[in-house]
Amino acid sequence: MINKLINRIENLGAPIVVGLDPMLGYIPECVKAKAFAEKGETLEGAAEAIWQFNKAIVDATHDLIPAVKPQIAMYEQFGIEGLKVFKQTVEYCKEKGLIVIGDVKRGDIGSTSEAYAVGHLGKVTVGQNSFYGFDEDFVTVNPYLGSDGIDPFIKVCKEENKGLFILVKTSNKSSGEFQDQLVNGRPLYELVGEKVASWGESHMGDAYSYVGAVVGATYPEMGKILRKIMPKTYILVPGYGAQGGKAADLAPYFNKDGLGAIINSSRGIIAAYKQPGYEKYGEEAYADASRQAVIDMITDIKSAI
Amino acid sequence: MINKLINRIENLGAPIVVGLDPMLGYIPECVKAKAFAEKGETLEGAAEAIWQFNKAIVDATHDLIPAVKPQIAMYEQFGIEGLKVFKQTVEYCKEKGLIVIGDVKRGDIGSTSEAYAVGHLGKVTVGQNSFYGFDEDFVTVNPYLGSDGIDPFIKVCKEENKGLFILVKTSNKSSGEFQDQLVNGRPLYELVGEKVASWGESHMGDAYSYVGAVVGATYPEMGKILRKIMPKTYILVPGYGAQGGKAADLAPYFNKDGLGAIINSSRGIIAAYKQPGYEKYGEEAYADASRQAVIDMITDIKSAI
Repeated sequence: MINKLINRIENLGAPIVVGLDPMLGYIPECVKAKAFAEKGETLEGAAEAIWQFNKAIVDATHDLIPAVKPQIAMYEQFGIEGLKVFKQTVEYCKEKGLIVIGDVKRGDIGSTSEAYAVGHLGKVTVGQNSFYGFDEDFVTVNPYLGSDGIDPFIKVCKEENKGLFILVKTSNKSSGEFQDQLVNGRPLYELVGEKVASWGESHMGDAYSYVGAVVGATYPEMGKILRKIMPKTYILVPGYGAQGGKAADLAPYFNKDGLGAIINSSRGIIAAYKQPGYEKYGEEAYADASRQAVIDMITDIKSAI
Repeated sequence: MINKLINRIENLGAPIVVGLDPMLGYIPECVKAKAFAEKGETLEGAAEAIWQFNKAIVDATHDLIPAVKPQIAMYEQFGIEGLKVFKQTVEYCKEKGLIVIGDVKRGDIGSTSEAYAVGHLGKVTVGQNSFYGFDEDFVTVNPYLGSDGIDPFIKVCKEENKGLFILVKTSNKSSGEFQDQLVNGRPLYELVGEKVASWGESHMGDAYSYVGAVVGATYPEMGKILRKIMPKTYILVPGYGAQGGKAADLAPYFNKDGLGAIINSSRGIIAAYKQPGYEKYGEEAYADASRQAVIDMITDIKSAI
């Protein structure tokens, strides 16, 4: 799957991923009004609005982008109805040829981590049968519990030829409270980065590992060091655009082969119609605004690497 | 909710919580056979088996225990069908007067953490209406992303009078890989403990905070120090029993008031019928075995504190 991701990135010339984080506030009133008219101002109505919104954006952008990253929290907040749309979105994106990175940030230990891995990447066994749960291609994972939390994910990834992105240095302001603490003179995120590189050796693709890392665009100096610590690790980079990360900051996340990083934008793409430069599309043509925002993002990032 | 939890612990004389982590391997063949006969060896069949299993254990133990802790991964692995049973289990336990600690170990930043908090503890707004998603009383949360990840949970907890248990020192063997790293001569988990105590000050119950901590039973020396660092923090203690934690190790997790800790046992209770001393019940009377295991656990823990 990491090879497939890299192929798509190279073929499209687009080291980007679109974050499908459909907060209701991002969804145009016209989409919500139609969904609520059909299914009421209910969880089902919200789920329908999210589905129509996602589908239009995927239809308008799938030929330009290698991957999407649905943030499961934005679905889970609507309970079962929301999670049904998460699953439907994963399935639809895969039908369209997109690679799906489930931004689930799960993490536990032993059989519990394995249950998460099985539910999101693998198959669960029931008697003589087995079934995929959510069936993403990659998921994000939290490393705080150490190898006991990661190994079960890697086991399932090996069975399924799938992959992970493990949190190393997150894009938020307070990420330093624990991640930047100095351990023997070096920040904790460097130790986590070393571990990610080491875990990744056990599940290699051609040039890069199936075990990737998350490093926020908002910390380019740290990104530069982590790039060196994890030379064969694909880095998923959140924080570009709305969170303040600029294209000029992104060069250190890439290797000399022009690969090694994939930049996420969520509201900058899916809510483009609300943003300066794209208002002219109006809310009814929100998907066209998203398409143009993808084109502009690719141009912006290419200018920097 | 923390006051209610403490009341129940005091009234029952039972500082324990039963982990409802229904792996299919724990469920008696007779329960599975009936469920599969009705709904096939399918996700629906697995969900039915889990539901019948949970219900019988809750029916047999609810008058003895203050709380349950369903581990969502064990449900999530069965996709939507599994999550429906998670929700059904939460609802049923609350009907029975139990406090429900959702062991979800979620954690993200800003609006994403808020979405998790809303989905598990609070209400999501759709137009003029609002709805509970999973509606647990407490959830477990991962601290790796710092205050940006925790504050949105506390915000929702304040609105709903609900609470958290934040991972500080987990019970697993590799928890030390990051959690034990020395920062200025002190292990990282102590820093996390200090932060938990500080976060907890903003949302206090009568004697203890709504913001609790998770500290594994397998590290009693660390538990002793963390007890001092977080005097007003309720500590959820996993790792007793099957993971190797012994009653004699538990005293340091309690304060002098006899409160301050709640000890979890999962497979030791729910799969008691498979364990030495309880095989005599046989698999059909698995719920009776669970009841006896609860009684024995309470006696064991009381002997130590």
